[in-house]
Amino acid sequence: MNAPTTADQLLPDFHLRDVPAALIDALKARFAERCSTALAVRTQHGRDESSFEAPPPAAVVFAESTQDVADAVALASEHGVPLIPFGVGSSLEGHLLAVQGGISIDLSRMNRVLSINADDLTVTVQPGVTRKQLNEDIKSTGLFFPIDPGADASIGGMAATRASGTNAVRYGTMRENVLGLEVVTASGEVIRTGTRARKSSAGYDLTRLMVGSEGTLGVITEITLRIYPLPEAVSAAICSFPSIEAAVRTTIEIIQLGVPIARVELIDVNTVRMVNAYAKLGLREEPMLLMEFHGSPAGVKEQAETVQELASGHGGNAFEWATTPEERTRLWTARHNAYFAAIQSRPGCRAISTDTCVPISRLADCLLESVAEADASGIPYFLVGHVGDGNFHFGYLIDPNDVDERAKAEVLNHALVSRAIALEGTCSGEHGIGLHKMGFLVDEAGAGAVDMMRTIKRALDPKNIMNPGKIFSL
Amino acid sequence: MNAPTTADQLLPDFHLRDVPAALIDALKARFAERCSTALAVRTQHGRDESSFEAPPPAAVVFAESTQDVADAVALASEHGVPLIPFGVGSSLEGHLLAVQGGISIDLSRMNRVLSINADDLTVTVQPGVTRKQLNEDIKSTGLFFPIDPGADASIGGMAATRASGTNAVRYGTMRENVLGLEVVTASGEVIRTGTRARKSSAGYDLTRLMVGSEGTLGVITEITLRIYPLPEAVSAAICSFPSIEAAVRTTIEIIQLGVPIARVELIDVNTVRMVNAYAKLGLREEPMLLMEFHGSPAGVKEQAETVQELASGHGGNAFEWATTPEERTRLWTARHNAYFAAIQSRPGCRAISTDTCVPISRLADCLLESVAEADASGIPYFLVGHVGDGNFHFGYLIDPNDVDERAKAEVLNHALVSRAIALEGTCSGEHGIGLHKMGFLVDEAGAGAVDMMRTIKRALDPKNIMNPGKIFSL
Repeated sequence: MNAPTTADQLLPDFHLRDVPAALIDALKARFAERCSTALAVRTQHGRDESSFEAPPPAAVVFAESTQDVADAVALASEHGVPLIPFGVGSSLEGHLLAVQGGISIDLSRMNRVLSINADDLTVTVQPGVTRKQLNEDIKSTGLFFPIDPGADASIGGMAATRASGTNAVRYGTMRENVLGLEVVTASGEVIRTGTRARKSSAGYDLTRLMVGSEGTLGVITEITLRIYPLPEAVSAAICSFPSIEAAVRTTIEIIQLGVPIARVELIDVNTVRMVNAYAKLGLREEPMLLMEFHGSPAGVKEQAETVQELASGHGGNAFEWATTPEERTRLWTARHNAYFAAIQSRPGCRAISTDTCVPISRLADCLLESVAEADASGIPYFLVGHVGDGNFHFGYLIDPNDVDERAKAEVLNHALVSRAIALEGTCSGEHGIGLHKMGFLVDEAGAGAVDMMRTIKRALDPKNIMNPGKIFSL
Repeated sequence: MNAPTTADQLLPDFHLRDVPAALIDALKARFAERCSTALAVRTQHGRDESSFEAPPPAAVVFAESTQDVADAVALASEHGVPLIPFGVGSSLEGHLLAVQGGISIDLSRMNRVLSINADDLTVTVQPGVTRKQLNEDIKSTGLFFPIDPGADASIGGMAATRASGTNAVRYGTMRENVLGLEVVTASGEVIRTGTRARKSSAGYDLTRLMVGSEGTLGVITEITLRIYPLPEAVSAAICSFPSIEAAVRTTIEIIQLGVPIARVELIDVNTVRMVNAYAKLGLREEPMLLMEFHGSPAGVKEQAETVQELASGHGGNAFEWATTPEERTRLWTARHNAYFAAIQSRPGCRAISTDTCVPISRLADCLLESVAEADASGIPYFLVGHVGDGNFHFGYLIDPNDVDERAKAEVLNHALVSRAIALEGTCSGEHGIGLHKMGFLVDEAGAGAVDMMRTIKRALDPKNIMNPGKIFSL
């Protein structure tokens, strides 16, 4: 395996391209005050939730319509200048950094739910709609959109990074839940992919090609999604385990038995301590599974009984159940606060987040060795996971000014990714490649497959203006 | 809408390219008796289950390994000669016809199940494994592969056409169930897409780009699939309805209520009559739904009760239940025999099959108008449908020598497809585009999206040797 060095991971490709004054003038003429060159605005649009930094984009355009996006892309294309789509800025792998300079196009004002087809269980939205906004908007229909990556991300950003999160074990990821898209291509043309039919064999799957392409093939300007009936019954539980291994082995059995669990999240003992300190939860300081069951009342009861039996076989105890929305919210507080509790546990720190995902039978091997390495490193960390999918995240809490700590965290991440790939898993379950995992993608997919991605990129974006320098180098 | 004329649908692009003797010599040198130029072999490999005809390929190569495929592709590439992958020949839209001449590569001998990972619910197979063979091979593990397009198709062919069938309403299509592929690209290079992880955000979704690409971007030589625990309980039912509309409205309510039904198939009264004549089933001669429920015993009972209530609201009656495998097989005989019963109902006929799929709320509109048109045409037909997905198939039973009948059937199909597209549906739910729906694809996706497909094709197959003349013209 031609593993990247740690240094490779830290050095994005800063080849800033020239942004001609003529382009800025043309953008200002077209967009007036919706084109900003104020440093504060540019700085805000030149970073994300990763720990990377790059010079800010030269300008930010606030799009309010597909035509706005098409015009901005056409101008960027004319001048050969990069264009980087921006939703709410919650991406985690440096996706939004203007590593080759250029223009940020902010889509947050394209935030209308365009149509709700309750009878078909579909909804069509603009890219700036956030997942919480969407669920608020469709609540009265008795339907919901299950994908929950934690952050209140924009739907456009979630599509672009192929996001998933806690409900994916039951409802799938953005890959399975995007039915169709409207996309502005690199030449500024507007195309549609997919229909509102649930399935189709009509030609190349452009929808799935765009989902997860991280803004490198076009700008997503409309998304048609599957939505689901709110389950008749929902029941949540937390359960403590004597070890991470016991919690993971329970999860493996739940999945292998085909229990249609809606959520099964691991929280390690570090995280439990952090959320106890942060939110005074008084949770038992042991590794925990948080679970949720959706279905009919009888179905939920049946699932819960099966899971309780499996858990007790591995020493699971202190089961705590919640069936009302308020009780469920309380139980899920631990999970939802994990990130902030962790950050607060070490003032001034930044989290370097890992994102491996492995076949479920390899989960214990992958996790336990990596926990041992993290413990040995001395770097503080928290560990949470969508373990039903084999996906988990370490958050290494580093002092961003301590070069040595950062390097140590990258060494841990590197060992983890190498292990996940050797176990037939992936370097990224849901965060995407961005800047941070470009070397790992080659390790995982092989040079031939990455070359195929490059060939597609060159064909669809010959001037390399769509979020260049991400996923792979050209 | 720039609709194709009926004539366009019938005139594949027969630009036969030269197949140099030097290529045949090289193939014979490499493959010996596994390269055949016998007319009978070529003829068998130059057609599928569609009603189209074309001159046979110049030779057939029987591949037994990925290396065989890579070598055959490399030789075809060297000589700029088309290469058409062949599984079992069950495709329905002219996918296998050598409309530009060239070589057929038969993958049926690559029929090994390479690994069964029961703990991870995955299996890796060669492309020539058929779905029945796969299910036979994994039966002892308590797992099954649900995708059932009717024919005992090869897994490679099913991936290449993005097949689905009766179980898709519950388990999804090949799009959702292929985790990864090994592919021989147009240059003869072997690449891997995907991993065994259940989800991934690592780069472009090459797996989904290949699934449904109908052999035009590469030859699939290995497929990793999701498999599922055999349900604890399975229950099947048939129910007769006073009208197609009543059956369809029941289906719509089942889906909208979120009942996790595993199969819900419509059979129209013509088909019931045909299967009664063919297999002496003595079924009530009314439109029928065939349903199957998978789950725990309590869950199956609950689903069945809900559905029975919904059906009775629409005049559904004569519910007949089956829980043992033998009883279920008997009930499903009607569905499985539909095609052959229909063909036998008119000796010498061929079936022209439609494949539209619409959002579930539009199903009644789409179906009922098309039934009225088909009835008015005087062409005998049968109608079956995976109605839970909004997908249904008319089979127009034409005399293949009667130009007028064929034209009439194409007019019916054209009207149906136009209707489905206007209702935000697709011209192909599961059969693919092949030769037959190239014009419809433009109507559905728009010129811009089809141009994007062409751009990808040109980039990945610059010599246009991979199954050329399918999906779109270049």
